[in-house]
Amino acid sequence: MSKDREVSVPLPTIRRLPMYFALLQKAAQENQASMSSSQLAADLALEPIQVRKDLAAIGVTGQPRLGFPVAELIQAIEKFLGWDNVTDAFILGAGHLGTALAGYQGFEKHGLNVVALFDNDPRKVGQTIHGKEVLPIDKLGNLANRLHVHIAILAVPAEVAASVAQLAIDAGIQAIWNFTPTKLVVPENVILERVDLAASLAVLSSKLAARLRPIEPTALAQEAQA
Amino acid sequence: MSKDREVSVPLPTIRRLPMYFALLQKAAQENQASMSSSQLAADLALEPIQVRKDLAAIGVTGQPRLGFPVAELIQAIEKFLGWDNVTDAFILGAGHLGTALAGYQGFEKHGLNVVALFDNDPRKVGQTIHGKEVLPIDKLGNLANRLHVHIAILAVPAEVAASVAQLAIDAGIQAIWNFTPTKLVVPENVILERVDLAASLAVLSSKLAARLRPIEPTALAQEAQA
Repeated sequence: MSKDREVSVPLPTIRRLPMYFALLQKAAQENQASMSSSQLAADLALEPIQVRKDLAAIGVTGQPRLGFPVAELIQAIEKFLGWDNVTDAFILGAGHLGTALAGYQGFEKHGLNVVALFDNDPRKVGQTIHGKEVLPIDKLGNLANRLHVHIAILAVPAEVAASVAQLAIDAGIQAIWNFTPTKLVVPENVILERVDLAASLAVLSSKLAARLRPIEPTALAQEAQA
Repeated sequence: MSKDREVSVPLPTIRRLPMYFALLQKAAQENQASMSSSQLAADLALEPIQVRKDLAAIGVTGQPRLGFPVAELIQAIEKFLGWDNVTDAFILGAGHLGTALAGYQGFEKHGLNVVALFDNDPRKVGQTIHGKEVLPIDKLGNLANRLHVHIAILAVPAEVAASVAQLAIDAGIQAIWNFTPTKLVVPENVILERVDLAASLAVLSSKLAARLRPIEPTALAQEAQA
């Protein structure tokens, strides 16, 4: 059990919390009042001791025979992650990726509410994407301030990622969720997290390409029909 | 310059290739014939020496005054990553995430073609999402085989991720791109790459929550209007 929660919880533990959260929510839906660490561990290919350590780190301990109280644990995780309150976010970039992210309803489950998209393309500005308006990027500073939006989801082309991130920082954005393949350098007080889809796909596809090359040197796919 | 390309290229290099690829494609569009390592480095917040090492690792070296030949470098990266051929993929799970991924047109730029989605929900099966059909999950084995599809993009709920991954492996899928928060254990011959959106958001939002808590203990967002 940790006293100074925010600071002392290890990153790998934080990254595992959403897995527990998903399982616990399912258990709650099925009216299950408690879950053992072995139950949680089995579904997640973890060791029960790891589960107990992770949950102790956010201040919840199980009871010898009863296991973990489902409802209490859900609340503790939500509170720790800030998912108990809705946090507003802007998506910067209304291209393919920004559009896909604007349509992803899974964010809402995690307390993330996309308020609007921003773009510098006059053909995109004024459009509505999945119910969210596309606003001109030069309004970012004004609106981030006025609406108290703290999170920017960066989904612009790689080559403008750094300059748009700077615009967001100048606008007072506190956390940048970087979906571009560009590595950003930000001031220490700006929270930066990255999801690099292209890098992940590069690793996967280079391995697959290396494997398939000797056997099938030409295009896969378009062959066999029926 | 490496001889045994597939094996000896370090993972961080592979993960950076898409960044170079994006910059080079832009340069090609602007009819730029060559690019220096400093030019590439500057846009990506890297050191020029890193850029030269990365590109040498896939067999391309620049020329002292001319820099790197743009067209040749694009081809070399595409070939290394297998992005020169279209690779077919199935999306497993036609929920919010599967739907968003099916609509993401950026995959096509990287040679990834989503052929169909699979789900076990009879209300989803038969629907068309972003032009792709949703097929029943029990047809996966048959179709993966017949259509020579090697990649499964896993976008099912966390609690069924392991069992659906096993279905994909049984169906002969060679590479699983895991978008679920579940850590998978797969046989050695199965290529596994993971994009953990929820874990990344958990890190970002826990940091933001820790920062905002003392200042704004209640919900942010819904306040300021005009």
